[in-house]
Amino acid sequence: MKETDADVVRAELSGAVDLRRVGADPDYWYPVALTRDVRVGKVVAAVFAGERLALYRGKSGAVHALEDRCAHRQVPLSMGVVEGDVLRCRYHAWAYRGDGRISQIPYLTKEDRRPPRGVRGFPVREAYGLVFVFPGDPDKAQATALPELPAFSSGQYKTLTYSRVVRCHYSFMHENLLDMNHQFLHQGVVGRLRPELIGQRSDGRSVEARYLFTHAGGKRNAGASVLAAEGISGGSRDVMTIRTEYPYQTLDLVPEGADQPVFSLWAAYVPVGADQRACHVYGLLMIKKPRVPAVLTVAAPLIRRFTERIFAQDRMAVQAEQRAWDEQGEDRNHEVFSLILDVREALRSNGVPLAVSAGPRGVEPCAGAAGMCGGGDPEPLHTDAAPAR
Amino acid sequence: MKETDADVVRAELSGAVDLRRVGADPDYWYPVALTRDVRVGKVVAAVFAGERLALYRGKSGAVHALEDRCAHRQVPLSMGVVEGDVLRCRYHAWAYRGDGRISQIPYLTKEDRRPPRGVRGFPVREAYGLVFVFPGDPDKAQATALPELPAFSSGQYKTLTYSRVVRCHYSFMHENLLDMNHQFLHQGVVGRLRPELIGQRSDGRSVEARYLFTHAGGKRNAGASVLAAEGISGGSRDVMTIRTEYPYQTLDLVPEGADQPVFSLWAAYVPVGADQRACHVYGLLMIKKPRVPAVLTVAAPLIRRFTERIFAQDRMAVQAEQRAWDEQGEDRNHEVFSLILDVREALRSNGVPLAVSAGPRGVEPCAGAAGMCGGGDPEPLHTDAAPAR
Amino acid sequence: MKETDADVVRAELSGAVDLRRVGADPDYWYPVALTRDVRVGKVVAAVFAGERLALYRGKSGAVHALEDRCAHRQVPLSMGVVEGDVLRCRYHAWAYRGDGRISQIPYLTKEDRRPPRGVRGFPVREAYGLVFVFPGDPDKAQATALPELPAFSSGQYKTLTYSRVVRCHYSFMHENLLDMNHQFLHQGVVGRLRPELIGQRSDGRSVEARYLFTHAGGKRNAGASVLAAEGISGGSRDVMTIRTEYPYQTLDLVPEGADQPVFSLWAAYVPVGADQRACHVYGLLMIKKPRVPAVLTVAAPLIRRFTERIFAQDRMAVQAEQRAWDEQGEDRNHEVFSLILDVREALRSNGVPLAVSAGPRGVEPCAGAAGMCGGGDPEPLHTDAAPAR
Repeated sequence: MKETDADVVRAELSGAVDLRRVGADPDYWYPVALTRDVRVGKVVAAVFAGERLALYRGKSGAVHALEDRCAHRQVPLSMGVVEGDVLRCRYHAWAYRGDGRISQIPYLTKEDRRPPRGVRGFPVREAYGLVFVFPGDPDKAQATALPELPAFSSGQYKTLTYSRVVRCHYSFMHENLLDMNHQFLHQGVVGRLRPELIGQRSDGRSVEARYLFTHAGGKRNAGASVLAAEGISGGSRDVMTIRTEYPYQTLDLVPEGADQPVFSLWAAYVPVGADQRACHVYGLLMIKKPRVPAVLTVAAPLIRRFTERIFAQDRMAVQAEQRAWDEQGEDRNHEVFSLILDVREALRSNGVPLAVSAGPRGVEPCAGAAGMCGGGDPEPLHTDAAPAR
Repeated sequence: MKETDADVVRAELSGAVDLRRVGADPDYWYPVALTRDVRVGKVVAAVFAGERLALYRGKSGAVHALEDRCAHRQVPLSMGVVEGDVLRCRYHAWAYRGDGRISQIPYLTKEDRRPPRGVRGFPVREAYGLVFVFPGDPDKAQATALPELPAFSSGQYKTLTYSRVVRCHYSFMHENLLDMNHQFLHQGVVGRLRPELIGQRSDGRSVEARYLFTHAGGKRNAGASVLAAEGISGGSRDVMTIRTEYPYQTLDLVPEGADQPVFSLWAAYVPVGADQRACHVYGLLMIKKPRVPAVLTVAAPLIRRFTERIFAQDRMAVQAEQRAWDEQGEDRNHEVFSLILDVREALRSNGVPLAVSAGPRGVEPCAGAAGMCGGGDPEPLHTDAAPAR
Repeated sequence: MKETDADVVRAELSGAVDLRRVGADPDYWYPVALTRDVRVGKVVAAVFAGERLALYRGKSGAVHALEDRCAHRQVPLSMGVVEGDVLRCRYHAWAYRGDGRISQIPYLTKEDRRPPRGVRGFPVREAYGLVFVFPGDPDKAQATALPELPAFSSGQYKTLTYSRVVRCHYSFMHENLLDMNHQFLHQGVVGRLRPELIGQRSDGRSVEARYLFTHAGGKRNAGASVLAAEGISGGSRDVMTIRTEYPYQTLDLVPEGADQPVFSLWAAYVPVGADQRACHVYGLLMIKKPRVPAVLTVAAPLIRRFTERIFAQDRMAVQAEQRAWDEQGEDRNHEVFSLILDVREALRSNGVPLAVSAGPRGVEPCAGAAGMCGGGDPEPLHTDAAPAR
């Protein structure tokens, strides 16, 4: 395989470049909305790394993703109106087809200047209750697989969906989950858990860690206790496998002696602004149905509350890391754990440079050092995004 | 007439320069407050393009406009106290005359350093319930006419006054009003109006468009319907004339066959910050009194509510345009409509460069590209400015 | 004594440099918290000129001050947990001793990379109900005296403590208090006071002014009147001595003919952000106990309310000065009063340059002109800090 320019850039990035200035590779499928939020005849705003998107579902039922700026006067198309399978800008009523081409300008006469062709359209797929777009080179979309989640549709698992903006670079999320030595943070919720690293491996695109978790006493909160009692969370000894498979991350919890996970988490961390200092977390938590499925129906709100509390603590920590980076202007971490050094390298070598000039995706960098002026990060569009069902 | 430096600069500006980086020419009369807000013995803060102003009305009844910073320690004089016809700084009690000259420093002794002479004073005039200042070269003030609004004092019209800050460059406002193809934006309020351009003309300082409006069905809201029924707004066919006469804008609505407007709007868009990315809109809406004037008394609140709804929609659109410009860092509009291309050219060629260095008006540019750091735009002083009577 | 580099820099600063760009010399003891807020087993966040601090009181009762970032991943140690005399980071449970050295990393194995030694620790002292730290060269801490406040513990005075963030450079505070010609600002509270400068002197590190205050009529508010009646504040003629003794400031009020102050104020203005455009004011107001001490118990809340009103007016003025500086980008004051010219010189010549590069204290300057991007000033940690008892 020939070495491409992108490969060269990536090689140069490795090691030398500040991990928090590495962008997520756009040549993957990224979730940008929940399926249920994009109803027929509706348009919603979404974003990937500063690229604003207008998602709409036409009467045919298909979701389309357009650059979220009318070619005419740059007004967001997400303020527009869906008419059949076209999207009409709210301001001067220019109409767009699902591929971004202009289909009509109501008032145009021969005296007027020739209009532009349209706006950029993005490949879209729907799966697992999520709307995925392919923000990178559209020619690569076809050959790039969606993540595979066999558990999702196996009938053996019930899925809870999470959607939240976290104000940190996506890399902090990967490091947080992989380094289970941070259980001290959750002590008030889960009691005293002792994680022991019992295996790790990495290759170019993935890093995997296996931990043996033993419960070492301490009060757990009600949720954690019920989960343990119902055999949904592990009992006293569980094996937890966490895996970064670029750009996604998964976590499986298998009680010692069992052959299937009782919990299986899939997560994507989708950059929000062009400076990628915030990410939209989409998570699918698949929970093994117990023998009496009604138990899970009862337990689900409990599990949600429990996971939200854990997540709130993690968010506090990773956002504090981002704030420190913002203040220091560079990554001054002294990481000691080889596993984390591995995942940092994987994220660096698979990432891309942050937009440094107005490239094909039309992302303008901030005038100062990348994003230092605070102008690069658009308002998160779903700050307190929908708790999923 | 000799070509001046300013003419050269303007010539260079034309076409080449981003319209949103063109400043409003300060050598005109601009409204900066409502007459009724500047009461005798009171001082209020106002602003023109980053130039802060302290307006006060002394016991003589005249309004004075001073640079809003004490020459001593730069504290706003608008925090000060009016004493007779002088304005005294609240901090160390330095007193200023209406022309900006210091009249007293209470504690000054011979040992002290020689004080400065004072602060800049601006020519002021009052008309139409507005306080106008002349922010530019004061020698030109005398020869520069206030806008003429014969309808205002004719007795045949009742005037509603509007005062609102809109977070966009003033040029977006001119384009918005002149391009009546944006009726799609107001469809929920006015029903389906079909505007047909039936005439246009421009010269160096003005651009005028005439539209024939026909009502093409669709539900109008109650306000619009009542107005139509009362013959205040047009019936099924009206001629609307919109005119940018630098730096002001007017709109007249004449029902087909009538010889006088039923509605006549005059508007000024006064830049707020030095970066001119927000403007304070002052509008005078003159409504022809019907044969039974009491009808208008009843209808006035309805008209106000109706126009506020229209205005809110326009504001949403133009502010979205400004946000897009802020993100893109430049004007990427693909304008097709020749009328709008004309008004853009008029605004460019009559404007002035944005303050690029601390010139005579003492306006400091932001450290980065014009206003990109967000530091150049002072807090609008009247964000939700007074609904006028 | 040999001229040091710092002396050279200071010499160059004098006169030439904008006073608002002069940093407070860190080689002094600065209060950063109230003693009562740092309870045993607790950790609180504090700050000096952008240097974030974690203060904690271990079981021994001593207060420790550490750099507020875990050496591992820069998460604030002020989010941590005190265990005996060590402070444990909340994220991965690294433990620190009071001097900043790491005492334990719970999960570290031989495979892991060698950890860092720890974080910076700061000398700490407690006095007058305040926690002082020495942010500069720790070798100088021992030889540098705490401010001496004999009145505090004399038994003759009752002390009220103040703690407030004011959004201005500390120099504005010194100028405000020394220039008593600003009584016009307080006229609504204190009536018409006529201050007459009856003496002044300065040397390299201090500037002192003596005023004779006479009450010239005008309504005083209830508080001021009661104080005067009780002989706590001065009657009709008082001598007020104000002194900047770098970096602190004091004010003594002695009624004519008396030999002891009835009021004695000590204040420190501690820079908050690296750009030093805000300061945390710590004030100790020592009030002479009257013959019947119960009078003071009754009067104390009155005095507090009265001083808070005065302080609120001063804050309005100095914050307006800072905003003007921010907008103008430089100091354009035209000071006329020789006393104030003296204190400006003293603050300049005793100050240090604002952090211009990532020096030993790890303070990063803002990308633009010092602090112009607004990024340099961390959120004040105690915006509306505790009213003291």
